[in-house]
Amino acid sequence: MANTDAVSVRVFSLNCWGIHYLSKHCCQRYAMIGDMLCKEEHDIVLLQEVWSEKDYIFLKKKLACSHPHSHYFKSGVIGSGLAIFSKHRIHDTFLYRYSLNGYPYMAHHGDWFGGKAVGMAILNIGGLIANVYVTHLHAEYSRENDSYLPHRVVQAWELQHFVRHTSGGADIVILGGDLNMHPQDLGNRLLRSYTGLRDSYLETAKFDGCENGLTLIAENPFINKKELVPFEKGIRIDYILFKGSSKVDVSCVSMSTTKGFVPDQPFPYSDHEALTAELRMESHALTETVRDMQSKQDPATGNVAELVDIVTEARTEVKVGLHCAERMRYTATRIGVMGLALLCLELAIAAVPWLAMGTEQPFPRTSFYLLAALCFAILATTFLLYIFYTMELKSLQGAEDQMRLAVGSLQEKLRGFPLAQPNNVQQRPPEGEAEQ
Amino acid sequence: MANTDAVSVRVFSLNCWGIHYLSKHCCQRYAMIGDMLCKEEHDIVLLQEVWSEKDYIFLKKKLACSHPHSHYFKSGVIGSGLAIFSKHRIHDTFLYRYSLNGYPYMAHHGDWFGGKAVGMAILNIGGLIANVYVTHLHAEYSRENDSYLPHRVVQAWELQHFVRHTSGGADIVILGGDLNMHPQDLGNRLLRSYTGLRDSYLETAKFDGCENGLTLIAENPFINKKELVPFEKGIRIDYILFKGSSKVDVSCVSMSTTKGFVPDQPFPYSDHEALTAELRMESHALTETVRDMQSKQDPATGNVAELVDIVTEARTEVKVGLHCAERMRYTATRIGVMGLALLCLELAIAAVPWLAMGTEQPFPRTSFYLLAALCFAILATTFLLYIFYTMELKSLQGAEDQMRLAVGSLQEKLRGFPLAQPNNVQQRPPEGEAEQ
Repeated sequence: MANTDAVSVRVFSLNCWGIHYLSKHCCQRYAMIGDMLCKEEHDIVLLQEVWSEKDYIFLKKKLACSHPHSHYFKSGVIGSGLAIFSKHRIHDTFLYRYSLNGYPYMAHHGDWFGGKAVGMAILNIGGLIANVYVTHLHAEYSRENDSYLPHRVVQAWELQHFVRHTSGGADIVILGGDLNMHPQDLGNRLLRSYTGLRDSYLETAKFDGCENGLTLIAENPFINKKELVPFEKGIRIDYILFKGSSKVDVSCVSMSTTKGFVPDQPFPYSDHEALTAELRMESHALTETVRDMQSKQDPATGNVAELVDIVTEARTEVKVGLHCAERMRYTATRIGVMGLALLCLELAIAAVPWLAMGTEQPFPRTSFYLLAALCFAILATTFLLYIFYTMELKSLQGAEDQMRLAVGSLQEKLRGFPLAQPNNVQQRPPEGEAEQ
Repeated sequence: MANTDAVSVRVFSLNCWGIHYLSKHCCQRYAMIGDMLCKEEHDIVLLQEVWSEKDYIFLKKKLACSHPHSHYFKSGVIGSGLAIFSKHRIHDTFLYRYSLNGYPYMAHHGDWFGGKAVGMAILNIGGLIANVYVTHLHAEYSRENDSYLPHRVVQAWELQHFVRHTSGGADIVILGGDLNMHPQDLGNRLLRSYTGLRDSYLETAKFDGCENGLTLIAENPFINKKELVPFEKGIRIDYILFKGSSKVDVSCVSMSTTKGFVPDQPFPYSDHEALTAELRMESHALTETVRDMQSKQDPATGNVAELVDIVTEARTEVKVGLHCAERMRYTATRIGVMGLALLCLELAIAAVPWLAMGTEQPFPRTSFYLLAALCFAILATTFLLYIFYTMELKSLQGAEDQMRLAVGSLQEKLRGFPLAQPNNVQQRPPEGEAEQ
């Protein structure tokens, strides 16, 4: 059955900017999004920042006919903000919550409360198994002084791990979402090189949308132009990525983005531009051996050396994060110790008049209690911070360990060491028995 | 190549009970464990409760010759306690942290601080790809009144999800660890039915160990016999599970456990018994179509009805957990509101003499500050608890949503609705195109 079956799939992705009371015209925009999705009837709709479950339920009702299958991924305090709507039956879902996602005390950035994650849904599209991923990584608030960079790199690392390990049985893989990374950013290179995922904007045969595929543009009325500096025209941080398998070839037929406005509407759908990609999947048959080899082979085999460089770069970034987290934990410990010392000092000062049986002036009672309350507040806060930074350190160390292992494994590959491939069975005597 | 290659693998699993200062003879026991592992030379060693990284490093040095490859999984505040040592190269590792894992304020139980997780390592054993999992679920402190049951059920649910979705490319799957569940417990049935994993104790051709395969036994000198009641002889909560694939048949040749003591040693390795299983893997070739069908088919297809019952039971348990978490969050909110009311009342009482310009007796200053400090402490604590319970609720709701989806999907299967199988391509017109 060579190239007999061709299936076409339209994928939509949008960061909905659904923060009630903070995002402008939230309800009206959701109504607009619902109308458009109902009309456009994309096969797969991947939404981010649907922070309120009520909005998800609103869309679910609105799209009941066009997209009968949907899933809302719950995580963190507010939720993950991730939702998927599909024309095709969703057979299974799975959520991976990133181990690092900002700091709870940076409440004005809010990322920590969102419980950023990657959601997976397994669909059956025309008899093919499609693993569809939707994700939203930690925002970049300052490009020059990006204190969240190690967190975002670890998120990208975990994302590529999750996609690689869970897509073993898939015929096609589709990933959409707001990666909060420019096309050549470290995390993006890590993700694409490791997984072999292809960028629909770069691969498309036909493109209609913003210049350079930008998805956060100066023309969008919801955008504060100052925040885009030094990228005056805008940045590209939203993506639809895809790859096929040994059985299915996938190509991007066309791709489009909105352009900062919606015809006949007073404002755009969101502060981000919406992405639509049309993917064409063609099944083909291969001989058993070739298929085995292809399916087990790392898609990145061809550029292992480049991958070693990227992982090494990521490891350096994680080490910077480790250094920062260690310093923060040290600071928290030091302040905690100072709080404890202050409490001891206070108790000692208060004890002196008591021991001197009234010959000394007593410690003013009000000041005593106020100071004690301050000390306890310092101790409680620093204790919580210590626990939080310890967890951050463990996650960073874990990622660094995995990266070291990965570099080692890749270097073995470069040296020509045979890696896990089932066809090795025939070439080599069984290791297990030999070593018993 | 029918039944040409046979590889044998010896797998070891032990909960090391490595809590320094609390566990008895911790250092001596690690030395004993190291000596034994060095001598026995198992192919794969799966350890749990290695809480201190120093102990892992001690074992790593000791096993440098016998087990040159190892990985320590970091997570949570203390760590996940999970470690793997292997004679075969570890190509990749991945960690999934369970979304629910007890409560931080239950510090005497300590599970929350451990960051319970499932660690995966991909090995190449005699040319076969082995996905090896090591895990440790939340402990059961009281069987009659087990407030952690919903958490453990969600952990088992996430574990089966993780194993199923990540083992797509594996030739064999091995899972070892302390599941903290009896053989017929809900979580255990959920895990085994969904993944198709087989219990080496039940499958073994030859067994040498404790009666009924018990792994927490009354004869072990570290065990408090009162805690085992009503299971006087002990319980079986540690497992080595395995399954093959469409290409490899796996069988358990022999299995053994320690029996509460170690010959020529003053005490056993741990409060748990150690498990050793010898697995025999035989590669075989199948026709392409049969392989495709087997690899894509759910191992549980045969007993879908049973699976529906199990998932429904699990869903009920998760709903109980949801109800509890909602009640706890409501209690926290109520106490918080009471703290706020108390603060307002205090401020009002203090304001009266001030407004009456000295005609009323003033609020004693010390009492004022003490009461205010108490109010703030209540507000801060209930705020943190509110956030924690909200996160718990989100995770429970997420699991419940997935379970509802799973039951729906299984029921469709029962009704004979065609599920995702690549060979459907030939039988049906491509859905995607028809719906465009």
